Amino acid sequence: MKILLFLSYVGTAYCGYQVQKNGTSIQQRLNEAAKSLFGFDCDIVGCSRTDKGVHANEFCATVSKKGESGIESTIPEPSLPKAFNSYLPGDICIKSAKYVSDAFHPRYDVKFKEYVYKIYTESIQDPFLFGRVWNYCREIDGEALKKMNEAAAYFVGKHDFSAFMASGSSVSCTVREVTEAKVVRNGNTVEFYVAADGFLYNMVRIMTGTLIAVAEGKISPDEIEAVIASCDRSRAGMTAPPDGLYLNRVEY
Amino acid sequence: MKILLFLSYVGTAYCGYQVQKNGTSIQQRLNEAAKSLFGFDCDIVGCSRTDKGVHANEFCATVSKKGESGIESTIPEPSLPKAFNSYLPGDICIKSAKYVSDAFHPRYDVKFKEYVYKIYTESIQDPFLFGRVWNYCREIDGEALKKMNEAAAYFVGKHDFSAFMASGSSVSCTVREVTEAKVVRNGNTVEFYVAADGFLYNMVRIMTGTLIAVAEGKISPDEIEAVIASCDRSRAGMTAPPDGLYLNRVEY
Repeated sequence: MKILLFLSYVGTAYCGYQVQKNGTSIQQRLNEAAKSLFGFDCDIVGCSRTDKGVHANEFCATVSKKGESGIESTIPEPSLPKAFNSYLPGDICIKSAKYVSDAFHPRYDVKFKEYVYKIYTESIQDPFLFGRVWNYCREIDGEALKKMNEAAAYFVGKHDFSAFMASGSSVSCTVREVTEAKVVRNGNTVEFYVAADGFLYNMVRIMTGTLIAVAEGKISPDEIEAVIASCDRSRAGMTAPPDGLYLNRVEY
Repeated sequence: MKILLFLSYVGTAYCGYQVQKNGTSIQQRLNEAAKSLFGFDCDIVGCSRTDKGVHANEFCATVSKKGESGIESTIPEPSLPKAFNSYLPGDICIKSAKYVSDAFHPRYDVKFKEYVYKIYTESIQDPFLFGRVWNYCREIDGEALKKMNEAAAYFVGKHDFSAFMASGSSVSCTVREVTEAKVVRNGNTVEFYVAADGFLYNMVRIMTGTLIAVAEGKISPDEIEAVIASCDRSRAGMTAPPDGLYLNRVEY
């Protein structure tokens, strides 16, 4: 069996999810915690690779003994979160955990993932949201919000999203199926929710930048169809900063 | 004239409000911002001295030219917040500002200050609240909340609060008038609001620790009257950690 962890983290202090030479990663902290808990090295496999400064309300990762397909563990399932959390820093928390079969893969078995991107619209920043929203700091009125939703509707469906992929990325297939794309106001923030079977590099951040271009009247909502069809990164909007991005839900 | 700043900050990264030899303080950051903005050294006088790790939803400070009773400034009042914020880190923000007379004193002129102390009650921590709540992580039920409010009611009035002052503190007068003391549930947190004309060192944190002792049945609500009258620190509860404490409102 493997252990499947459901965790939440503030990405601000980390170089991203994945282990890197420079900087501390979420994966490294999970590796250290697993080693402290079990006394041997473990393999940690995540559902996704979040970038530097990106957060997770829900992220999934499996734990197995290093080089093996599973792990022997006598810890009762309900005790797993606190057992791991006692070895983790306060900005990474295991919310729940369960035992799954050796065959389970946290990335390949994902049905869909949902991201939320938070755009702060008050003119004066909130220090408690520093690093946790995009400090856009301009009003997005009802008309602009409506346009953003009209534009977002074009994302839904199975498309080649090359126009919404950072250059330099090398993936063989750039077709993804988006099942949800909506923009809602939540107090001082405007939030973009998007769910898909997978995401290209920087896809949500470029989608967000494009929706802001729509809000500002630089791109009209019905141009989005042509932007997608163009497969041309230069036709989409800017890449929004990582601060506002959260992996929100992972569905298996 | 002086400039009166209304600011908000996350205390996590700071050694407290006041300039100290070791560590960076909020006051130091304000001093640096004022010098960058005006080109000369300034005196920054705060309404209070918050401790290491304590936060502010509202904090007040005045700015005058170093060694002088006021400052010459041509910045229009509405432009003051953004002018200062452009020189401040993202975890300190000026929310509003106004010009006041040279005679104004941000500490002596306070009518009352309100603090809020946030106690997190879910069993599993929330990484986004790390350093921003007391991770008590135990349930506080309706009965316990009721007892906490019965106890808090004894704080209201003009009392010698020596029993709620950290040892080693040297103030000439330990009498303070508390005008509000209530405990409310707010989602995953229980919040203690307390307003007074002034506070002794660690007073809110010791009050909070005492209310938790009441919630846990270690002290009965009607014992609080005797605890106050005893002027004996050892009869009150523990000092709650700084993380959950916020200066919430300053009234002139």
